[in-house]
Amino acid sequence: MHRAVSPSPPRINGMGTEFDRDIEVTANGTGEHTVELGEGWVVGGGVNGGYLLAVIGNALREAAPGKPDPISVSAYYLSASTPGPATVRSRVIRDGGSVATLAADLSQDGADRITVLATYGDLSGLPDDVRTSAVEPELPPLEQCLPTSAAPEKLKKTAPLLSRFDLRLDPAYAGWAVGQPSGNGVVQGWIRLADAREPDALSLLLMVDALPPATYDLGLPGWAPTLELTAHVRAIPAPGWLKVRHATRNVAGGMFEEDCEVWDSAGRLVAQSRQLARAPR
Amino acid sequence: MHRAVSPSPPRINGMGTEFDRDIEVTANGTGEHTVELGEGWVVGGGVNGGYLLAVIGNALREAAPGKPDPISVSAYYLSASTPGPATVRSRVIRDGGSVATLAADLSQDGADRITVLATYGDLSGLPDDVRTSAVEPELPPLEQCLPTSAAPEKLKKTAPLLSRFDLRLDPAYAGWAVGQPSGNGVVQGWIRLADAREPDALSLLLMVDALPPATYDLGLPGWAPTLELTAHVRAIPAPGWLKVRHATRNVAGGMFEEDCEVWDSAGRLVAQSRQLARAPR
Repeated sequence: MHRAVSPSPPRINGMGTEFDRDIEVTANGTGEHTVELGEGWVVGGGVNGGYLLAVIGNALREAAPGKPDPISVSAYYLSASTPGPATVRSRVIRDGGSVATLAADLSQDGADRITVLATYGDLSGLPDDVRTSAVEPELPPLEQCLPTSAAPEKLKKTAPLLSRFDLRLDPAYAGWAVGQPSGNGVVQGWIRLADAREPDALSLLLMVDALPPATYDLGLPGWAPTLELTAHVRAIPAPGWLKVRHATRNVAGGMFEEDCEVWDSAGRLVAQSRQLARAPR
Repeated sequence: MHRAVSPSPPRINGMGTEFDRDIEVTANGTGEHTVELGEGWVVGGGVNGGYLLAVIGNALREAAPGKPDPISVSAYYLSASTPGPATVRSRVIRDGGSVATLAADLSQDGADRITVLATYGDLSGLPDDVRTSAVEPELPPLEQCLPTSAAPEKLKKTAPLLSRFDLRLDPAYAGWAVGQPSGNGVVQGWIRLADAREPDALSLLLMVDALPPATYDLGLPGWAPTLELTAHVRAIPAPGWLKVRHATRNVAGGMFEEDCEVWDSAGRLVAQSRQLARAPR
């Protein structure tokens, strides 16, 4: 039997949101899920890595009973994906106690594009303790930030990903847009999905790789393909806008690390990620 | 044919160093390697996770021709390992261009203990560019730091791992040893292997998980089992002492992230890692 897996309740009168529709996976009865990668998530040389992470994350949601939420996901990117049909093969490595360890591969045209290890659990069942010493990014109010909706039409056409979000960049780290990068290696801003679909654990996997690379702010524009990305989802986000901050501290040997923090509207650090990417040449 | 894989030239007159001897793996002709996990690497509830990472990293060294060095390694820890025989099963997911993506599982007594994804390449072939903005930790001179060799004999007996290193902790973040944690969530110090075996790319996998957890410095002593650890090896370290710094910024929901930086004697950030671990209860 083919069966659709819905990651969260449809938002408007039974109609799925754009994100939910585009990450919808269908079990094909052989332990695999099929998905149609949306055209809207393309940027640079292929489909956005965060979107692909959310697709895989959605396929893994039903792998372990009682453990619906991604807690840690490590993705190794093998080759660029393109819009169209893809397959997610998943398997349970260990399911016991409060977490399960899972593996998944996303393939397309017979070739693996991404291979993943993950820990899943139940975020709603975690203890309430919070002793975070990280400092929430201070962002100017929404209306003083730079909306990427104001990007040139030509850019929006070649990078349709831009239109999937309502993204407001902190102008202090957006000078690269006019050829004046700050040199700090930071990019940050307010973000939500374009149709205001509320954040959940799954959409955080998208958010950790949604912004332009922090290398833009170092005066290194260009495509920065991810080799590896590990995301930790630490809590279910509160409704509303998210703050996302990317920073890099070690650009060397033709690679750089990029750390991402996602803060929710309640001021909680809900996700952290680090990726290793190739520096633009 | 059984064949021993040596990760680096033996140091003293053809005798392997302790580390090299204890990570030695033997191909058993069926695509697997066997290894004898040393008793000296035990701490807390099992064999140290960094040592296990180095064992797996050594088994993977010959998986892809011309790509001997770990660049990124993501390990998901399933259950505690014990000293004695273990098996590392590895496979090549993709080998092409300058990097290869590999997978490995370490099993013992028929159960998987650790599952790993990795990117391997040739660190000596990377470009020379360095634009690191991270700041090298300032440590007091060696002789003003606290040698773990001065730990009580009883502790050294139950945690033989301590004796594998010459570790000198920065006293500013070692107050927990006398019940006065600084509260910063930082542990840092000078480190090298006890027999002064020089660092290389492989031993950095050990170094990123060698120190006591940063939670000690928050007044949360106790075992902090790793769920996931990803290490990025960014350069071949220069000979000499390493500086290692661990810090945590997000203790919440019964888990914490721990970031590690390893700096070599030439002042280069040679490895970064992040792990997600369970907070001590």
